Amino acid sequence: MDYTAKLDLAIERLHEEGRYRTFIDIERKRGAFPHATWRRPDGEEQPVTVWCGNDYLGMGQHPAVLDAMHEALDNVGAGSGGTRNISGTTVYHKELEAELADLHHKEAALVFTSAYIANDATLSTLPKLFPGLIILSDELNHASMIQGVRNGRAEKHIFRHNDVAHLREILERLDPEAPKVIAFESIYSMDGDFGPIRELLDLAEEFNALSYIDEVHAVGMYGPRGAGVAERDGLMHRIDIINGTLAKAFGVMGGYIAASAKMVDAIRSYAPGFIFTTSLPPAVAAGATASVRHLKNDGTLREQQQTQAKILKTRLKGLGLPIIDHGSHIVPVHVGNPVKCKMISDKLLEDHGIYAQPINFPTVPRGTERLRFTPSPVHGPKEMDALVRGLDALWSQCALNRAELTG
Amino acid sequence: MDYTAKLDLAIERLHEEGRYRTFIDIERKRGAFPHATWRRPDGEEQPVTVWCGNDYLGMGQHPAVLDAMHEALDNVGAGSGGTRNISGTTVYHKELEAELADLHHKEAALVFTSAYIANDATLSTLPKLFPGLIILSDELNHASMIQGVRNGRAEKHIFRHNDVAHLREILERLDPEAPKVIAFESIYSMDGDFGPIRELLDLAEEFNALSYIDEVHAVGMYGPRGAGVAERDGLMHRIDIINGTLAKAFGVMGGYIAASAKMVDAIRSYAPGFIFTTSLPPAVAAGATASVRHLKNDGTLREQQQTQAKILKTRLKGLGLPIIDHGSHIVPVHVGNPVKCKMISDKLLEDHGIYAQPINFPTVPRGTERLRFTPSPVHGPKEMDALVRGLDALWSQCALNRAELTG
Repeated sequence: MDYTAKLDLAIERLHEEGRYRTFIDIERKRGAFPHATWRRPDGEEQPVTVWCGNDYLGMGQHPAVLDAMHEALDNVGAGSGGTRNISGTTVYHKELEAELADLHHKEAALVFTSAYIANDATLSTLPKLFPGLIILSDELNHASMIQGVRNGRAEKHIFRHNDVAHLREILERLDPEAPKVIAFESIYSMDGDFGPIRELLDLAEEFNALSYIDEVHAVGMYGPRGAGVAERDGLMHRIDIINGTLAKAFGVMGGYIAASAKMVDAIRSYAPGFIFTTSLPPAVAAGATASVRHLKNDGTLREQQQTQAKILKTRLKGLGLPIIDHGSHIVPVHVGNPVKCKMISDKLLEDHGIYAQPINFPTVPRGTERLRFTPSPVHGPKEMDALVRGLDALWSQCALNRAELTG
Repeated sequence: MDYTAKLDLAIERLHEEGRYRTFIDIERKRGAFPHATWRRPDGEEQPVTVWCGNDYLGMGQHPAVLDAMHEALDNVGAGSGGTRNISGTTVYHKELEAELADLHHKEAALVFTSAYIANDATLSTLPKLFPGLIILSDELNHASMIQGVRNGRAEKHIFRHNDVAHLREILERLDPEAPKVIAFESIYSMDGDFGPIRELLDLAEEFNALSYIDEVHAVGMYGPRGAGVAERDGLMHRIDIINGTLAKAFGVMGGYIAASAKMVDAIRSYAPGFIFTTSLPPAVAAGATASVRHLKNDGTLREQQQTQAKILKTRLKGLGLPIIDHGSHIVPVHVGNPVKCKMISDKLLEDHGIYAQPINFPTVPRGTERLRFTPSPVHGPKEMDALVRGLDALWSQCALNRAELTG
């Protein structure tokens, strides 16, 4: 057994499939988002504009967030020093959970070190609480949900993406007495399309199933108080478990679920991924609380983001670029070839100082490779002009199709 | 199907088994560790001394760490804004990984959001890299390692705790050509005992198995540069994958592996738990780098911690208290009954202002319930006196055995 040879093989496979990734070293400038410094592999520095970040509203540089973090560092230091059950619970964690429960109008919330682990830990723990649980999962659910479903080892059924009729078909075949959970997202981040939340909840109620929604690409950005798409559509009260992140629109780090007090009590008591890990640093919790609080009370950034997304989509459509438009804030531009996708991304970065990571397999299916732009309130007209001009030039230069695949 | 009734049942079970946990809200005072404010359930505040934290050296309040964090917040803001592959890699992450690779004298290191996810993601990914992998795992390995082994779904064999002969027995039965990994810890945190690292590595080499060590309760604290027990014992170069944490002795948050460049390249490319999650906030990475760097160059805190642990153990032994002493910095005091264990912990907190969480099942086996003290350089003679006197009084008051179970 030659372990090194096996590693070589595994890495070779990635190169062959054109999906070997290299980290791009980007340092954003606080107060000047989305401007950043790119540290090139040769050590040279070059100014760039970040167009693919998930700090969707620029809250990572908001003074309210940063002040709260500085203050917590001064008060209680760097780390929490323990798991939530062993010396790692502080008033900062409690305040954050109260703020999140209030945001979602649920009895309770539970903070995890990431939304990835919140999904994994919660979904894999549900079968312990509801023996015989059957999980119904949208085929395009995020990797963390797939891991949670897989790791829980319950009976699972995958329904076709957003296909309510298919879900009904499956539900009709199942034991009506068996406990069930339907797991889906509100916005699927790679296409930027919305889940049919109302129809899914109708089915959940008809078949007495729990509902589990991942709103990580929506919290902070949709709904009157930024609680997500379910809030915007008046459906939040019908959902059993809401998963959200503190690392995207809220600009910091961490993830959470919001649910009934009993559900949260059970998850916090049974999920190894919650129990056996150091809690978030108090400063991170403090920053997240400030961010949630700000976006709850002030919709300005939310509105600006939607406006920016509309402008960008209109301009790209005007040039005939094949954007995928489902009405969300995410702007994917279809390329459909991993090599070309990477080439355009490289040229944008090198020649135009625009950073947008190519999205290739396995993050999206082969043949649907794309660039994915995330306009935000910090992307002004100047940045938008540069992006639109850069893409236009590259599309001509690379002889790429226009408009063919506009969604 | 009544979901609420099932949740009631799950929670009831915890109460019946005496293992329902309540979060204790503790706010440490930066600059005055281990002193903290306890926010009682009734909202009243009470000063307490934390004796069960894992910020083993008090680095969470070290000026070098806090300065680095403040500075990074000022420079680049709160969150990283993306996954490592999509806009979430910064010079702070790269510096931290270089620092950790250097610490362990490995070619590379990879930072995760926690050591829990570092264990889970790495161990569950190894079977993808080495098809047919057989995992040999110490029965007392941490929950995160158990999850990783379980989630990887490879063939696994559990060997009795620290039992090298049992491990050999198992290895002799296995296909000599099959890829294998032996996974163990350097210090098991509940008893504070050491793994037989040298003997385990001898076996790994004899049977051509990879070696995987969890040093989370040792990094920062053992070895001339704080790289762990394997460094102290001159064995680090013989280990394939080292797992460590930035959330205990380094005082911040996050986890990592250190290994060959190829191993790290493969894990970062294949582990969903690494790929699909927002990277650590740059300020957290900066704080961790400062902490690793400080402890690498200055052994003062390490020596002080060992001294404090020796003093505490000597004093508790002197009173005949049943401490478990395996020579590490962890000081468990055996109680052996979940109700008494919780009662002593409650009384220590209420009457003596001393916070030490009771450690009950399932963290430790039933019948071995204990209090677990973590003396550190910030616990001075005054704090030590108060703890020793408090325990002495409670042991008499509760008519508990002395010395019976001293390890």
